[in-house]
Parts: sequence; C-alpha cells; structure tokens
Amino acid sequence: MRATIMHGTHDVRIETIPDAAIREPTDALIRVTRACICGSDLWPYNDFTDWPDGRPMGHEAIGVVEDIGKDVHHIRRGQLVIMPFGYSDGSCPVCHEGINTACPNGGFFGSWETGGAQAEALRIPQADGTLYAIDVGEDDALMPALLTLSDVMGTGHHAAITSRVRPGVTAAVVGDGAVGLCGVIAAKRLGAERIIIMGRHEPRLALARAFGATDVVRERGEEAIARVRELTGGFGAHSVLECVGAEQAMATALGIVRPGGGIGRVGVPHYAPIDGEGTFYRNVTIAGGPAPTRAYIEELLPDVLEGRIEPGRVFDRTVGLDGVPDGYRAMNAREALKVMVRP
Amino acid sequence: MRATIMHGTHDVRIETIPDAAIREPTDALIRVTRACICGSDLWPYNDFTDWPDGRPMGHEAIGVVEDIGKDVHHIRRGQLVIMPFGYSDGSCPVCHEGINTACPNGGFFGSWETGGAQAEALRIPQADGTLYAIDVGEDDALMPALLTLSDVMGTGHHAAITSRVRPGVTAAVVGDGAVGLCGVIAAKRLGAERIIIMGRHEPRLALARAFGATDVVRERGEEAIARVRELTGGFGAHSVLECVGAEQAMATALGIVRPGGGIGRVGVPHYAPIDGEGTFYRNVTIAGGPAPTRAYIEELLPDVLEGRIEPGRVFDRTVGLDGVPDGYRAMNAREALKVMVRP
Repeated sequence: MRATIMHGTHDVRIETIPDAAIREPTDALIRVTRACICGSDLWPYNDFTDWPDGRPMGHEAIGVVEDIGKDVHHIRRGQLVIMPFGYSDGSCPVCHEGINTACPNGGFFGSWETGGAQAEALRIPQADGTLYAIDVGEDDALMPALLTLSDVMGTGHHAAITSRVRPGVTAAVVGDGAVGLCGVIAAKRLGAERIIIMGRHEPRLALARAFGATDVVRERGEEAIARVRELTGGFGAHSVLECVGAEQAMATALGIVRPGGGIGRVGVPHYAPIDGEGTFYRNVTIAGGPAPTRAYIEELLPDVLEGRIEPGRVFDRTVGLDGVPDGYRAMNAREALKVMVRP
Repeated sequence: MRATIMHGTHDVRIETIPDAAIREPTDALIRVTRACICGSDLWPYNDFTDWPDGRPMGHEAIGVVEDIGKDVHHIRRGQLVIMPFGYSDGSCPVCHEGINTACPNGGFFGSWETGGAQAEALRIPQADGTLYAIDVGEDDALMPALLTLSDVMGTGHHAAITSRVRPGVTAAVVGDGAVGLCGVIAAKRLGAERIIIMGRHEPRLALARAFGATDVVRERGEEAIARVRELTGGFGAHSVLECVGAEQAMATALGIVRPGGGIGRVGVPHYAPIDGEGTFYRNVTIAGGPAPTRAYIEELLPDVLEGRIEPGRVFDRTVGLDGVPDGYRAMNAREALKVMVRP
C-alpha cells in the first residue's frame, strides 16, 4: 500500500510499504477515506530526529472498517469511523475518567508500530475503545468538520476546558493555527464573553473573527503581553489557550494570564521547565496535555452534525497522497492553513 | 508595644517597638487577642535572609478593633475580627473573583511596612476589605478553630479546591503539618472518598485519621511514590495537596498524581522550575498559590461555628509573647505541631 514516510528535515515521500493488517485480536483495519496534515507534523518536518527507516506520518483520519480482530465487539465491518489521534482501550479507569490519551494500553499513531494515517490503510489497535462510528455517508459535506474531531477541534476544546473557559470570561488564544482557531470555536461554545486571538496572518484572523474572536492582537513577545493587559484592564485573561508549544508562546501565555487564571496547554512542549514561583504567587493554574479527543467526540458531534460549529473551515486545501509532500511544504510556508488528504 | 522580631537564623526576640498606629484613612488598628506561629515562619527561622533591622513576624491573628481610619465604613471599633494573612481591598476585579492574595492594593503581613501579628497590636491596611467581623466572645472556646481561618484552614481548603477534590476522588496530602492536617479536613469536607496522609510523626497521623484520613503512607521519596501507586491500582491520586513547598515534597506530588489529576500547591515554593513535558504528557494540572483565605471565610465559618469541622485541634501549645521564641524552637524541633500566642 502507499503511505507517507518522513525521511529527514523537509524530506517527505510517498512510498509503497507492506499492507496494513490485523495483528492483535483487538485490532481493526481501516481504509482511510480522509486524513490530514497536523501542525505538530511540522515539528519533525523542521527538525527531524533520526528514525532509521524513516517515520510513517499522520494521526488524524476518518475511514471505513475493512476488517476486525476476533475480540472486537462494538465496531463492525463497513462502518465509517472517526479515528482519534491516540488509541485507547476505553475500559480502564483512566479512560473512564476521560483521559484516554493516558490509557495504559494506549498510544499514538505515526510510527512503524502503529502506522501513520496519511496512507491508504491503517491498523487500529484497541479498536473498540478507539474508533467512533458515525452514521453519515463517506462523502458527506460534513466530512472536513467530522475529520477535525480526530484532533484539532477536540484539541482546541481541551485547551478551552483545561484553561477553564466558562460563561463570561475573557479568553486569549495563543496561536492562529488550526488548533488555535478551533480553540476560538470552543471558547465561544463554552460561553467566553471576550475572545482575544493572537496572531498575524490576516486570512486566519478573519476566520478567527468568523468563529467568534472579538479582539485581535498582532503584536508579539513583550508587546503582545502589554497589549492584552491593556485590553483587560491591566489584569490579563482568565483563560489562556496555549495552542503552539513554542518557548515564546508559553512565555506569552504566562505573561497574559490573570491572577487566579488558567493556562490550557495543548501545543507539544518545546520550552524550558516552567517557573514554579511566579505562577505560585499569582495563583496561576497550568493544565492541559494531549487532548483526549476520543472522550470529547460525544459532546462535540451533535454541534458538528447540526452545523452549530464549523471547524471544517480550517481546511483550505485538499490533496491526494501524491500531493502530501507539497502539502507539508505549503503548511510550513504558511501558504496553507490545514491540508486535507484524500488517499 | 511588644512584638516578635526575627534577627537571624534561630534568633527570635521579643522587643519593644513603636506602637502600631493608623497611617492611612483605610487602616484599622487591632489589639491582637490571638496569634500563632506558622510553618512558613520556619523557612526564615532556618535560613534567615538579611533584614537590616530584623523582621517583624506573624501573619495570623484574631483581634479587637481599637481604632479605624476615616475611610473605613464596614468595620467598627470594638468588633472582634479575623485577620487573613494577606490584606486586600475587597473591591477590585481580582478580589471580586476571589483571588484576594493577588489584589493590586494588597500585600502580606510580616514586615516593617505592615507589621507582624505576633505582637500586642497591628495596623491593618485596607481594613474594610481585609477584616472579617465575627459575633463571638473574645475568649470563646472556638477561638483556636476561628484562628485557623486566618491561614491554615483556608490554606488547606485552597489546596483541596485547586487540586480539584470532589466527591468520590482519592486525595493524597503531602505533609503532616497544620496545613496538611487542615487539607485532610478540607478533602473530607469536599467529598473525597479516600484520603491518604503522607507523613511520619505519629501524633499528627493520629490527628489526620481523626480528621478523616483513610490511609497513611510513612515512606519517603521513591518508596512513598511506589506505595501511593500501590494503594491506587497503579494510577495515583486524583488530587494531591502539596502542603510543604520543599523540593522533595513537590517531587513526591508529581510522582503520585494520577493522569489527568491535579496538584494544589500551597507550600511556599522552595523547588526548581517544574518539568513542563512530563506534566503535559500526563495531563497533570498544577494549581494553587497563596490561599485567598479572606474569600474562604464565608464558606468555612458556619462549619466551624457549628462544630462540623474542628481545625482548632492543630494547636497543641499556647504561649504568651514571652514564650514565642521557645515556640519557634519547639515547632522547628517538631515538638509542637502549631503554637498559639496570647499576647
């Protein structure tokens, strides 16, 4: 089968690799109908850490179940399913508490062990706990929006939940990537009165406004911090959605959070350890992590199906598998916001 | 008037200093009827940072209002009042949000500027926002319990709130000092099903059990972490109340918190910056800070007045002002759990 393999910095190739297949009795095999490229895929794209045989890429997908192992009881052949970016057994105490991304029997897609989703097919470990069957056609117009439940919409929601967005608060979203934009949707959905988007890419800022952002801060670093303070009576934002993971993004988040406020981190951390003293004296809460998107599908799906939220608008380009390498280039150059893949 | 001044490591003296007096129109002057020595007073006791004229000590008190400035409208002469360890205006957005300890017009007791509470009298800045009048006699039997609302009971409550104790959870309390023991009370009060106290001082552990602790972990370091994991099916505690502030205590807290769980920090931090990556991947929430005890009095007071909680039991010694230096020695030697002062 054909799949996306990253071999080095800025070196993404479409290659023929052995077909994905059931390995464990709890596995399912899906034919990928939609996948996409994630902002987090750009970390290795720009700074590849050596994997001897390259790295299979992709961790977001919708697909059709082609086969199931003998211990799969809830997922059936022929179902269209959302695949969250992490797999999980769905039955342990940690999954029951909604932290599926920390499931002791779980893990993440995008390795030789699990396979990557930017491919024709994929083996899904712990299929019963991982996959979420949806009752829509394979080419439904909602497909882009549904695909975001695999990662970015659930991740933006996690940033909003863990930064404790609630009715009436001022939320600030650090980062205008797809996750940040979904964070705007989530903050509005949870009742934030004011939503400050921090970025400088006009088309993205326009989309943020369409999603509910009330204020735009284009400055960076200390100037951005000063601007958010100015907008918030000197106090800062109650909820800061840190949707990047870079050193400067975290520094900005720490600088704009209000005393007693919360930072919801969902960007993969690329920063130094966090100052424990300054955050203490300001009673700042630091939360977040890999979003348990599987746990959030149930809550978010009705809003997607009924069109109350439109996270599918983050996709601004669609490619076939052959277009994936150029999709990486385009996202990295910020020519494309988020690239959908139809293998 | 007589007051407690710390001059160096292990050097606490009772001295005559200029009488406390109204300075600002928003001040009140109180005659201290009860004060106490705090676990946090032992940090400078053991490692004094040079203050040229020594440092006035004490930040917990109950007292009688002797005088008020002309802009004090809610507090009246003759009232018996609880003085929280931080002063705050009670009228700014941060106070309205319940984070009084971050009030821009606030600060902390225990300096020449504000005075120390282990003294005959004390000037209270922002008296209307700071003081909480109570309608009981000056020598009521509940005085020890009421005094804990100044700091330790409110601080234990803050650890429980910020570590998200809720009905059914397993809470672990790191530290068997007065704050940790009040944390046990708070965790039980908020519905924790299981409360693990971590310490090794038998009389304190007995009190923890009386307050509602269900399990005791006497080990330290890696062994303590292993023991808590063993007690919790390998997963750790949902809520960890970090009531010490030392490096090892924080390391223990990070080691025993469950994926998706929370650490509520109330011990003054004496540790290195916090690992941002490990906490991210486990979706751990780190929260807490100086407890806004003023904001908590309203909620906790009825339980104290009606005897549903008995935080006053943390006091196991009472001294006059002359006994304060020996009180420090006794608490530092762990001979006394918490020393009450009747100036």
